[in-house]
Amino acid sequence: MNEIVAIDWREAAPLPRDAFEAAIRAVGAERYHDKHEFHKLLHGGKLKKEQVAAWALNRYCYQEAVPRKDAAFMSRVHDRELRREWIHRIHDHDGLGDEGGGIERWLVLTNALGFSRDYVTSRRGALPATKFAVEAYVRFVVEQPLTVAVASSLTELFAPSIHRERIAGMLENYDFVDDRVMAYFKRRLSQAPRDSEFALGFVLDNAKSRAEQEACVGAVRFKCDVLWAQLDALHHAYVTPGLIPPGAWRPGEANV
Amino acid sequence: MNEIVAIDWREAAPLPRDAFEAAIRAVGAERYHDKHEFHKLLHGGKLKKEQVAAWALNRYCYQEAVPRKDAAFMSRVHDRELRREWIHRIHDHDGLGDEGGGIERWLVLTNALGFSRDYVTSRRGALPATKFAVEAYVRFVVEQPLTVAVASSLTELFAPSIHRERIAGMLENYDFVDDRVMAYFKRRLSQAPRDSEFALGFVLDNAKSRAEQEACVGAVRFKCDVLWAQLDALHHAYVTPGLIPPGAWRPGEANV
Repeated sequence: MNEIVAIDWREAAPLPRDAFEAAIRAVGAERYHDKHEFHKLLHGGKLKKEQVAAWALNRYCYQEAVPRKDAAFMSRVHDRELRREWIHRIHDHDGLGDEGGGIERWLVLTNALGFSRDYVTSRRGALPATKFAVEAYVRFVVEQPLTVAVASSLTELFAPSIHRERIAGMLENYDFVDDRVMAYFKRRLSQAPRDSEFALGFVLDNAKSRAEQEACVGAVRFKCDVLWAQLDALHHAYVTPGLIPPGAWRPGEANV
Repeated sequence: MNEIVAIDWREAAPLPRDAFEAAIRAVGAERYHDKHEFHKLLHGGKLKKEQVAAWALNRYCYQEAVPRKDAAFMSRVHDRELRREWIHRIHDHDGLGDEGGGIERWLVLTNALGFSRDYVTSRRGALPATKFAVEAYVRFVVEQPLTVAVASSLTELFAPSIHRERIAGMLENYDFVDDRVMAYFKRRLSQAPRDSEFALGFVLDNAKSRAEQEACVGAVRFKCDVLWAQLDALHHAYVTPGLIPPGAWRPGEANV
């Protein structure tokens, strides 16, 4: 039986470090978005170009939210060393100096899929559910304790395998995808492990009580929900039942 | 008579660009903290070392809040180019890579004045009024429209002259001050004009209505108040009447 029980962790002993790490990693096996039906279709070459386009258009909102999320986190950090470590995440996404950054690479992908830069960056064709989900992530790092906020980034532990799978599957299955448009994911293969290694160490070191540990595991679940909800909305609008909400991009729409 | 009138600017025509800029600059003449009694004492060599120390200890809280303020601002900005421009302010304060940044230079000053790094960065000896004032600045950029938030940085227009005056006055008047401890201000002589030039252009371009223009002028006043309130608190605690609140640093205190 799956009874819902509100557990009071205040009296519980902390998990040993390895069991805590295992609990975090178990969330990936349980609910990371590589298990979502939409991703199976995407990687397996089962989507039409317009469905891949809808995915890229919506996922832009997530990409665009991430550096704002990282800035929101930094705005709460009094420890300068932690800010100095964290800021490179903003550099990775926004670029620094001559380097265009990950969002620029994402716009190469959306361009290849038929969207103008202005249409994508305006976010006006994205699904409302996408925008609500990603802004919930920005709010989460503002409102939660810092260690829990850091823990919400730990889906990066699960990212390299999905990115490898995505690069291989999309290159093989879609003739509108080439190395250039997959550049975003290739770069993330090296960035994500650096980030997740730091964040995991930080969480394992700083979540001392069982209650804090459970809140961190909950943060990884929350973040998986943010990712999952985006794919639910895409699937509902563009696959089955294909009910696109008012204002969202419709395949064939002019001036995008 | 100075009647307090709540003015409704919605029907008023926008100020021409030069008159708007003049209104912003007039705030500096009216209430920038170079007019505060404490600053006159500081620059004129009229303070004891312990009073200069109290100033540096408290002003650290402002230095430390600035990159968090800039991150809080960035967390609201959807325009990547604006984020890419703004992030160098965080680099200036926090440093980047091998460069230690302005806060590190501030800690050279507080160290020369007898404080350990841990005591300063803990902020536990700072006046509560200092912390309230600087956190009000962080909140301001979260809560106000973006253009108004940018305008609150425009006290930088008035900073180079106070920094030049401060460098000259403090080097001449205090034997515990040398070039090395004044490095923070020397660096700001080149950083502040770059920042204020961009921010001024942004505000002049983006505040379109008279109401927005007045809100921007109000933001500069607000920021002057943030700076002024810090000196009021210092003066009250460490000059006249010299009433140091509970918990704040007392000259001669051990373990600082």
